[in-house]
Amino acid sequence: MGVPGAARPPLTEHGLIARYFKPVATVPGAFALLDDAAAFRPDPGTDLVLTKDGIAEGVHFLSDDPPDAIAQKALRVNLSDLTAKGATPAGFLLLLGLAPGWTEDWVAGFAAGLKADQDAYAIPLYGGDTIRSPGLVISITAFGTVAAGRMVRRTGAKPGDRLYVSGTIGDGALGLLVATGDPRAASLAMPDRDHLLSRYRLPQPRTDLAAAVAAHASAAMDISDGLVGDLDKLCGASGVSARVETEAVPLSEQAAGFVSNDENLKSLCLTGGDDYEILCTVPPERAAAFEKAADAAGTPVTAIGEITAGTDAPAILDAGGQVIRFASRAFSHVGMRADHIRQSE
Amino acid sequence: MGVPGAARPPLTEHGLIARYFKPVATVPGAFALLDDAAAFRPDPGTDLVLTKDGIAEGVHFLSDDPPDAIAQKALRVNLSDLTAKGATPAGFLLLLGLAPGWTEDWVAGFAAGLKADQDAYAIPLYGGDTIRSPGLVISITAFGTVAAGRMVRRTGAKPGDRLYVSGTIGDGALGLLVATGDPRAASLAMPDRDHLLSRYRLPQPRTDLAAAVAAHASAAMDISDGLVGDLDKLCGASGVSARVETEAVPLSEQAAGFVSNDENLKSLCLTGGDDYEILCTVPPERAAAFEKAADAAGTPVTAIGEITAGTDAPAILDAGGQVIRFASRAFSHVGMRADHIRQSE
Repeated sequence: MGVPGAARPPLTEHGLIARYFKPVATVPGAFALLDDAAAFRPDPGTDLVLTKDGIAEGVHFLSDDPPDAIAQKALRVNLSDLTAKGATPAGFLLLLGLAPGWTEDWVAGFAAGLKADQDAYAIPLYGGDTIRSPGLVISITAFGTVAAGRMVRRTGAKPGDRLYVSGTIGDGALGLLVATGDPRAASLAMPDRDHLLSRYRLPQPRTDLAAAVAAHASAAMDISDGLVGDLDKLCGASGVSARVETEAVPLSEQAAGFVSNDENLKSLCLTGGDDYEILCTVPPERAAAFEKAADAAGTPVTAIGEITAGTDAPAILDAGGQVIRFASRAFSHVGMRADHIRQSE
Repeated sequence: MGVPGAARPPLTEHGLIARYFKPVATVPGAFALLDDAAAFRPDPGTDLVLTKDGIAEGVHFLSDDPPDAIAQKALRVNLSDLTAKGATPAGFLLLLGLAPGWTEDWVAGFAAGLKADQDAYAIPLYGGDTIRSPGLVISITAFGTVAAGRMVRRTGAKPGDRLYVSGTIGDGALGLLVATGDPRAASLAMPDRDHLLSRYRLPQPRTDLAAAVAAHASAAMDISDGLVGDLDKLCGASGVSARVETEAVPLSEQAAGFVSNDENLKSLCLTGGDDYEILCTVPPERAAAFEKAADAAGTPVTAIGEITAGTDAPAILDAGGQVIRFASRAFSHVGMRADHIRQSE
């Protein structure tokens, strides 16, 4: 309760951790962040599923995004990966690299976001590291568990399998247009803007779908770089092709209204990033059981096409059954500032 | 095999991973880095021990440090944590945040360093993420295993326990003087400079000591922020104090020669960072067995004092038995550029 404007003592790394992250790390194996490492005891008969995703300012989020949303995005992109593998979340470790000019208020907001999601998704903070970094960067390693040998790979899709997506596609890409002040988004009504922006800033990982994926999917991944590009990857890993009816691809009401008269925006929904929905393939004889399990989990899933034989790029068909040609099939997060990772001269 | 000076096609993130990191990730559970996550099956009756340490350019390493050494440092600081907990290394995940201006040669060197250490320390790469970042940052999550419930904490030290360190103390701190061109290092002979610089750039984690620590230590941690400051932390966590005979603290021949006539440099050995040796406490009745196990592991250990009752700061005694007063008891890695983590105004 400092006097406004009064100097507070400088906060060391240990002080920062004690004040903001120790209250989050309440699981016993985190040892209140007072040890060199954490301990986790897996249930017998389970495999650990481990994933690590980093996000950096100006690349994966914008510098004026709220700190709690940045924390939650960093965690949720990992939760989305675990879900796609059929894994139940078990814990996470955090690297927070703070750039010059950081404020204690920012860290407080960041920690509050972590705490909220730790509780919402039942994935406790086990440990981590806070460092000084030239730019703000957050790296999270999340781990979950599956029955031994049951992690759902990208490689198991077979011709004839049904192709499903969870939720709605394209909101995140359209939300990025809102966030960056794209003129096409200027005429949107405020509630629609808010919805799309929220989908861009805050992925809604489909953790409730993990058990249905584990039980029924032949292959799965999460959609982070656009439906088309990620389907390309899944088919490439499985050695198959696919056919997608774009008319079947579920759009939110807000997205549907926004893109209705603009073919470029419709394409953006299919190729833009940040959906964080699940893309999975299900053998036809399991399709009914998968849909029932998804329904029981409260997670909407939609069949959008099927897996086909061959190694051609998946055919994305318009309403007239014509193959759509895209300028770019996948979204690249390194391209937000048009500075793609490239070889130096 | 490009023509010198000829333009090569730009390398995407996926191309970068395929060319340089996929050849490293040969363990089956890494799925050749082609999936969203990795899978690891722990042995029954074991706990996972998880640690995460990040390093950033200008804070934990210097921008002209060799890339293979940077990779190895990033991995080895985590190996040192696992060893201190008595854990056997099992695997790691990597975040590589590349700053503008990175070169493919740099990444090739970095990957070669990882590969060499993966083999040397039997800790396979399981997965990770390569992102564009405002500054070069590397974050590694390493995991290992211990018998269930047997992770060695910082909290178990008891009055009367012997205090041990592995290897030699102070070489890393003196190596930083060499690396930064400190005038006091100018008169060192080249082999001495090389030794100290190598200890600063390349921690030598004492992984061979893990079993002896697990079997005999009542408390342990690795020394990364200086012997004195880290002993303060261990004693604080255990609710005890300690007495250290500085004459017993093992120095390398190179360090001993360098500091022989300079009390400030002697203090620097005790309070500077980057030792990556093990500090542990051993009940007196187990001391002989611990020393024997360390000897069998080929790892030198030295008794430097003992744990005492009370909560005073550990007493660090000079040759005359006087308590040494330090200007600063611990090294702060955020202070390399004198920009300590502090609250913004």
